Amino acid sequence: MAHEHKDSEMNDVETRTFFAPDSQSQRHNVPYKVGIPPKQDLLKEFKTTVKETFFSDDPLRLFKHQTKSKQLMLGLQAIFPILDWGRSYNLRNFRGDLIAGLTIASLCIPQDIGYSKLAFLPPQYGLYSSFVPPLIYAFMGSSRDIAIGPVAVVSLLLGTLLQNEFDPVSDANEYRRLAFTATFFAGITQATLGVFRLGFLIDFLSHAAVVGFMGGAAITIALQQLKGFLGIKHFTKKTDIVSVMKSVFGSIEHGWNWQTIVIGASFLAFLLSAKYLGKKNKKLFWVPAIAPLISVILSTLFVYIAHADKEGVAIVKHIEKGINPPSVNEIYFSGENLLKGFRIGIVAGMIALTEAVAIGRTFAAMKDYQVDGNKEMIALGTMNVVGSMTSCYVATGSFSRSAVNYMAGCQTAVSNIVMSLVVFLVLKFLTPLFEYTPNAILSSIIISAVIGLIDYEAAILIWKIDKFDFVACMGAFLGVVFASVEIGLLIAVAISFAKILLQVTRPRTAILGRIPMTSVYRNIQQYPEATKVPGVLIVRVDSAIYFSNSNYIKERILRWLTEEEDQLKATYQRVQFLIIEMSPVTDIDTSGIHAFEELYRSLVKRDVQLVLANPGRLVLDKLYSSGFPDLIGENKIFLTVADAVLTCSPKIVQEV
Amino acid sequence: MAHEHKDSEMNDVETRTFFAPDSQSQRHNVPYKVGIPPKQDLLKEFKTTVKETFFSDDPLRLFKHQTKSKQLMLGLQAIFPILDWGRSYNLRNFRGDLIAGLTIASLCIPQDIGYSKLAFLPPQYGLYSSFVPPLIYAFMGSSRDIAIGPVAVVSLLLGTLLQNEFDPVSDANEYRRLAFTATFFAGITQATLGVFRLGFLIDFLSHAAVVGFMGGAAITIALQQLKGFLGIKHFTKKTDIVSVMKSVFGSIEHGWNWQTIVIGASFLAFLLSAKYLGKKNKKLFWVPAIAPLISVILSTLFVYIAHADKEGVAIVKHIEKGINPPSVNEIYFSGENLLKGFRIGIVAGMIALTEAVAIGRTFAAMKDYQVDGNKEMIALGTMNVVGSMTSCYVATGSFSRSAVNYMAGCQTAVSNIVMSLVVFLVLKFLTPLFEYTPNAILSSIIISAVIGLIDYEAAILIWKIDKFDFVACMGAFLGVVFASVEIGLLIAVAISFAKILLQVTRPRTAILGRIPMTSVYRNIQQYPEATKVPGVLIVRVDSAIYFSNSNYIKERILRWLTEEEDQLKATYQRVQFLIIEMSPVTDIDTSGIHAFEELYRSLVKRDVQLVLANPGRLVLDKLYSSGFPDLIGENKIFLTVADAVLTCSPKIVQEV
Repeated sequence: MAHEHKDSEMNDVETRTFFAPDSQSQRHNVPYKVGIPPKQDLLKEFKTTVKETFFSDDPLRLFKHQTKSKQLMLGLQAIFPILDWGRSYNLRNFRGDLIAGLTIASLCIPQDIGYSKLAFLPPQYGLYSSFVPPLIYAFMGSSRDIAIGPVAVVSLLLGTLLQNEFDPVSDANEYRRLAFTATFFAGITQATLGVFRLGFLIDFLSHAAVVGFMGGAAITIALQQLKGFLGIKHFTKKTDIVSVMKSVFGSIEHGWNWQTIVIGASFLAFLLSAKYLGKKNKKLFWVPAIAPLISVILSTLFVYIAHADKEGVAIVKHIEKGINPPSVNEIYFSGENLLKGFRIGIVAGMIALTEAVAIGRTFAAMKDYQVDGNKEMIALGTMNVVGSMTSCYVATGSFSRSAVNYMAGCQTAVSNIVMSLVVFLVLKFLTPLFEYTPNAILSSIIISAVIGLIDYEAAILIWKIDKFDFVACMGAFLGVVFASVEIGLLIAVAISFAKILLQVTRPRTAILGRIPMTSVYRNIQQYPEATKVPGVLIVRVDSAIYFSNSNYIKERILRWLTEEEDQLKATYQRVQFLIIEMSPVTDIDTSGIHAFEELYRSLVKRDVQLVLANPGRLVLDKLYSSGFPDLIGENKIFLTVADAVLTCSPKIVQEV
Repeated sequence: MAHEHKDSEMNDVETRTFFAPDSQSQRHNVPYKVGIPPKQDLLKEFKTTVKETFFSDDPLRLFKHQTKSKQLMLGLQAIFPILDWGRSYNLRNFRGDLIAGLTIASLCIPQDIGYSKLAFLPPQYGLYSSFVPPLIYAFMGSSRDIAIGPVAVVSLLLGTLLQNEFDPVSDANEYRRLAFTATFFAGITQATLGVFRLGFLIDFLSHAAVVGFMGGAAITIALQQLKGFLGIKHFTKKTDIVSVMKSVFGSIEHGWNWQTIVIGASFLAFLLSAKYLGKKNKKLFWVPAIAPLISVILSTLFVYIAHADKEGVAIVKHIEKGINPPSVNEIYFSGENLLKGFRIGIVAGMIALTEAVAIGRTFAAMKDYQVDGNKEMIALGTMNVVGSMTSCYVATGSFSRSAVNYMAGCQTAVSNIVMSLVVFLVLKFLTPLFEYTPNAILSSIIISAVIGLIDYEAAILIWKIDKFDFVACMGAFLGVVFASVEIGLLIAVAISFAKILLQVTRPRTAILGRIPMTSVYRNIQQYPEATKVPGVLIVRVDSAIYFSNSNYIKERILRWLTEEEDQLKATYQRVQFLIIEMSPVTDIDTSGIHAFEELYRSLVKRDVQLVLANPGRLVLDKLYSSGFPDLIGENKIFLTVADAVLTCSPKIVQEV
């Protein structure tokens, strides 16, 4: 059988080398020549690298061979996609957008009021941030399903970062001004990343890390709500679970307010069951969507009628009436507060970006349209910069509201316009109605909203798929819950980087064997039936060979060799050929070539011949310019492992 | 021909699937099953990863199945290799070591005096550092050719870093104490890296970066020597070329001292010609080795006789007599100076380590013996810690002296012992002789020594091989020359990291075609003769798929598809199968799998079938635990691209 196989393989070689089939005489054929690529033009090479790095999406593709006017039009459309899809906008689309817009509006109003509390800002600022930013996004954004506005996690993050600098109560003024400054620079950061096409930077926060971070943030937020939910007056400023629990149970006797708890609990039950209903029956998605508004209305009425506020039920009291006042002059453009705002802005901006882009991608994949990451960042950035000048704080895409938006059948970003118009009306006329809204309700709404962010299924899947990812996930989660949001974030990023560095420092290597009755060579660990070729050791290196791993690879290969020789000692055989399968070696640098030269020297000392199989274009390129092939002999480089083995094994046969 | 080939390929498939050869009936054979690896045991997986990362050299290999006493002996040998090679040490070895030792001693004495000036320390400290550290290294080190002592680059680095904190003249005392503190922590750093087996960290300074850094340092050092060489009194403290040139030409009229220049120049000429002679004729390696000592003796005599010091020729004046005084109580173990020393120590320690390990590896490769990186670090660390307590500053392996040591035929580290004994005698009895040694000579000696560090040939080779490496090299070089040593170092590290990140963010992808008359599929850019299979697009992804590149890869593949379809439009054909060659994909994480799922969805929308070829063990493992194969269908995963094409193409044939 094995012999028959050899023949069939010889056939391959013959056809390759244009000889008449004759398996005996062909053993010393030269196999198919390995392609030596034409010398790369440096400038060209450099340009392609830059292009792939920053313009991988080839943004100017459309502009090629177009008239000037057309190009101008396309340019405008690139900045304002609404000019593109707006022209094909019809009534049917509007119907969908209207319904969706109204739904998310009803959801966002109570959320906004709650979230602004998370950011330690007066309630109206949440509403402000749901009025201006969505409008701007609608014109510039490329996602059709994202719902813009303040979100829980960013509000929390902003709040924690800001109160490290100013006390939100005693120096409320500086606090608010710093908030706008941070928002301004968050926007600048986002836009800059987009303009300089550094969008890929946010990819460095891995999916696993984000899952963990979000989950942790959700729990932290929920814990923060215990203040409003239990009606506790004196609550810790810290966000870690330990100090929160302390201040919760420390205030049992005198701190809690049973009326508050009753209201909060009953409505939380209502909200959760509504959520459950919506989950069970997709048709009823609107139930959880409007439940918050309903509960706000009911509870407000109840408190108003029953004068529950006299019983110590904390209420919103006052929401400023009227639309966003300008806040340009409030932004710190100088002094150390500028730096503070800058620092906070970068962090908040990046996180907001991660969330928005994640949402954009998810829904784009569902409906199969492309969201241009960099364009998206410019849109989000602009919207936050303008927002910071109109009394808004950092806004971005909200997971919960975007999902509702999608299920409510939104067609375009118009749903955001509808929403912001509703918010406008509320700001203009209805804010006084919220005076008697109990904080407990807002807490319940936030709790029921953030629960959705705890994606334990994803965590389980991550555990199943990749243990290292799970560590990153848990690290972020625990970091947020037990330390603080920043710490959690730091851990997440650190672990993500550690993973990359580990990959490039300790690449995998594998011993290959021939799959029975084929000319295919595979990892003998994966295919136990694969058999080694006597006298030949075939090693596959599973990574680009760079300074960071060249020494390791060299030593690992020599170790494979030593181990093999130790095994062979008994059989009085020895390894005569070391074949390195280079297919996965995508690139090599000078350190790598040095390592190869050292490897070659050690092999010569051991009287083992070095053979390379299928080096890629780049690698071959560099090997030749370093003169390595002349060192080992050009006839030592083959197209496939099979070829290499064919030319080695006969020599062995002769010796034995 | 093509048909005959198809047959031969079918043969492969048949034999794989145990059918009688019949090329027509076999088209729909199930090809060779892709190996599904046994579920990985988590603990085992984790252990192997840790082992490969930290114990890749399997340090305890020897200790397995040994008696307790033997293990103790081996343990001692592991810490003190001298116990191992010492037992087989004989007179012939000693002869080699004696000659080598004397030669490097004659070279090191003048160098030490000069280098200590680079570190702004009194001359005797250079000699101290050539006495204690080499002794300790000889017992603990595993390299046979390295010559230990103070070296130019580290002395310069230490000097620049220290004088940022204290002025070496006005607060000489604090300066010296900080130097010892830094040395102490340099040693601690080195030993720690060794103990925790983090040796691979120094690999992150790429070969290219080191070449550039060394070259830049050499030039900076040479420029510093102009002070002594031209006999300038007032010289800048800065090291960048601009300010040095300013203070050189600013002092032409009154600053320069012609007698000094004459002496310096003449002896520099002598030294360089000696160097040249040694290069030309390897037998005369000893000429450049002893030339420095000779020139010191001659010039000293000359100055003494001619009273040239009266003519303004600066001389060494006084070198403390006697061996190293203890300096434990001088090390700062508290206060902010501790921190300063710690910071400086880490940097100096790492650089010293890089140099020593590079030397160790080079000569080990020449004589084909293994240097254990981590063991080496422990040895170097201990030697510097002890050194810091005996008035030595950071010592490491010297390029120039090690080369001489090697050529003088050293056999073991005993040559270091010989050298340090000579230094001992000098310290004990001969220091007064150096009183009249002119600084100009020391400058000439240093200049002729550091010139060897400018490895322009290596730079040229780097340019030839890898342009990106060249950028790193030049960045480090220019950084050192025009800014400062730290800046240069920073640039080098930064560029090295950027390269790694670029690799993991923007991996390469390639379109594959079939090499004529084979079943081999290769990059059509590398093999222009390779032909695409109609209706099938074969893409190879050249990297592990991680969060950092998953989105890019997904979008890139879709772009390949779009481009292909645009081309096909004319021919009324369309792509029906997208085969992804996974051989180079060494690993995938949750983000990667998400990207694949999104890719699959987009493909479904375009009515293109997704097929995977040869996913590796890890990847397959994770694909299965994520249930991806069920999504695309298990029969969509093949062992080779050839198999995949075979099962796709007939379907196409039917449709057409």
